Amino acid sequence: MPESPIRKLVPFAEAAEAEGKKVHYLNIGQPDIETPKGARDAVKKANVDILAYSHSAGNESLREGLADYYRKNNIDVEASDVMVTTGGSEALTFAFGAIMDEGDEVIVPEPFYANYNGFAIQNGVKVVPVEATIQNGFALPPIERFEDLITEQTKAILICNPGNPTGYLYSPEEIAKLAELVVRYNLFLIADEVYREFVYDGVKHYSIMSIPQLKDHAIMIDSVSKRYSMCGARIGMLVSRNTIFMRTALKFAQARLSPPTYAQIAVEAALDTPDTYFTEVNDEYVERRNILVEGLNSIEGVFCPMPKGAFYAVAQLPVDDADRFAQWLLQSFDYEGETVMIAPASGFYAQPRLGKRQARLAYVLNKETLKKSVEIIRRALEEYPGRYV
Amino acid sequence: MPESPIRKLVPFAEAAEAEGKKVHYLNIGQPDIETPKGARDAVKKANVDILAYSHSAGNESLREGLADYYRKNNIDVEASDVMVTTGGSEALTFAFGAIMDEGDEVIVPEPFYANYNGFAIQNGVKVVPVEATIQNGFALPPIERFEDLITEQTKAILICNPGNPTGYLYSPEEIAKLAELVVRYNLFLIADEVYREFVYDGVKHYSIMSIPQLKDHAIMIDSVSKRYSMCGARIGMLVSRNTIFMRTALKFAQARLSPPTYAQIAVEAALDTPDTYFTEVNDEYVERRNILVEGLNSIEGVFCPMPKGAFYAVAQLPVDDADRFAQWLLQSFDYEGETVMIAPASGFYAQPRLGKRQARLAYVLNKETLKKSVEIIRRALEEYPGRYV
Repeated sequence: MPESPIRKLVPFAEAAEAEGKKVHYLNIGQPDIETPKGARDAVKKANVDILAYSHSAGNESLREGLADYYRKNNIDVEASDVMVTTGGSEALTFAFGAIMDEGDEVIVPEPFYANYNGFAIQNGVKVVPVEATIQNGFALPPIERFEDLITEQTKAILICNPGNPTGYLYSPEEIAKLAELVVRYNLFLIADEVYREFVYDGVKHYSIMSIPQLKDHAIMIDSVSKRYSMCGARIGMLVSRNTIFMRTALKFAQARLSPPTYAQIAVEAALDTPDTYFTEVNDEYVERRNILVEGLNSIEGVFCPMPKGAFYAVAQLPVDDADRFAQWLLQSFDYEGETVMIAPASGFYAQPRLGKRQARLAYVLNKETLKKSVEIIRRALEEYPGRYV
Repeated sequence: MPESPIRKLVPFAEAAEAEGKKVHYLNIGQPDIETPKGARDAVKKANVDILAYSHSAGNESLREGLADYYRKNNIDVEASDVMVTTGGSEALTFAFGAIMDEGDEVIVPEPFYANYNGFAIQNGVKVVPVEATIQNGFALPPIERFEDLITEQTKAILICNPGNPTGYLYSPEEIAKLAELVVRYNLFLIADEVYREFVYDGVKHYSIMSIPQLKDHAIMIDSVSKRYSMCGARIGMLVSRNTIFMRTALKFAQARLSPPTYAQIAVEAALDTPDTYFTEVNDEYVERRNILVEGLNSIEGVFCPMPKGAFYAVAQLPVDDADRFAQWLLQSFDYEGETVMIAPASGFYAQPRLGKRQARLAYVLNKETLKKSVEIIRRALEEYPGRYV
């Protein structure tokens, strides 16, 4: 597997800190929001004498609770349609493993979450990218572009909605086009919906699971990592009403025995988190997003479409090369002793030249830090020798 | 992936219970021993405000603690040689992924832990079996048999020591023969040593990691699941002094982000478990083993080699087919309203006919239940219509 452009920067960030620079990490997706107290308390109170294996598909009570949660979100599933996995990562690995053989292909709009490449490599699957453009705010590329790429080897289309890294939220019309296509070609539509709760400006999230015609085609990847700020729980969900698919996925689940027990206890309690938690969290993210995105767009030469979901934004920067600029920020620049680490977008594209001047910025830091970070980027772009408009 | 012969039996066990029969589960490896209190208390006491990702290789303090544990066990490693994984399962998946490509081969003495097949299938790897015989107590097959099977595609030899399902403990001489072979052919030697602490009769466990010549060849798979009766923690370890291998494995670890956080807290505390815990647990297992194995050997036509480690035994039964016998036990037999579920050994063999008359029995149940179980098997063999001596 290739080294990611973000990881290549880590030694430079470490060196910057060692020199005494303060580094603001805009590159990461680890929220600074507290995990709901109910979830943490449940683990403290749990009486576990023997920390035993759970069912390979997860505890039955948790699966029932998750099915309830989905039904409240207009996703009509039973507990048997839900498998608890070790993070959304494992859910996607099982999905790839269950529907694809060596050499099979999955079509993915790019830029996309870089770890999809890793899961594809692990399963011997080829990622076939379709470019979404920053000029269109990373909207769904024309559906004909997908159709042109379908071959005998194509088994699925994979989307992330809302998107990491783009923050783009697909409209019901866009989802309907994908649905029509996968039904016509008898493909799977896999949607990574782990940011489902993070949608802004009054727009509603539209799940692939809410389309009855997709019963045997839709596979949802989900996770509690971001929803309840429980990244370290390592609990994800694989959801599908295709019973043959779920039976195959269960064999992968059985091979690895079970998802983690303590985390399942925490998640079951987290499901009782009051809606106000999400309202407060989302209000906070909207303010952060506005500070970051409006701030970036106020810098000459920068273009950053306004994301409608998740907590990332992709910005076009007036630089020769965002990888080089990101390294320069850590190595050669500071403003009042501070600098930022950004994620060059090249790692989110499968096609080599794309996204060369783009970077992903996560708005999971507090508002003051984000304001300062925008200021740092503004000053840095004034000084950067590779500036290019 | 094929259905395992054990899972095929589950509906019959459920039906037997529904009929009111008491079923003793000799088929499972879930210990009934309490998880050390220190580990459980650490989770209760932990102040986790944000359940965040840990380092992809696991928390540094845990890796340091694990390295200390290994050094106490004559395995000279640094924290950087240890990666925390989500169960031993994931450690083996990473190992296969890091050293093998589609079509590569791993040689494994059979019978072996059935899930090795699943991990091999996931990685497109071919398992090449070498038969170990029950007559020899499942000792290492002649080393020439391994050598005969080495091809251009062979990348590793995989052993389980002490063995699941056999309970066999490899001698230093056997390990030395394997070591010489893998060095000569430049292969990896992967040892699943998750039962390392469970060795009996004063015999010492001999790790592949204690051989200096294997520095770049040895990969140890480990887990706390059995050691601390923490199967549900899902914490395993991938250990190797081959730094290039560890760097490649880290890429797989990074793709899935991190191992579970609560469980890492529990395991770090578990490392302080006093040695008396193991002494008591092992004394208990020795008594259980003796009840089961001596009991089985006292039945006419049954042969069960005495295992020196783990908590499993494989027995040859005077039956036409152990799969059929196992199903018959659940479906058509009871002794005083009770019966047993056993694991037919066919699932632990890659070659079709082998182990047809063998079954694995786990001695993780209490002594009274084991005595009763032996009596049930004795009576069942007297009645079973497919008896065959």
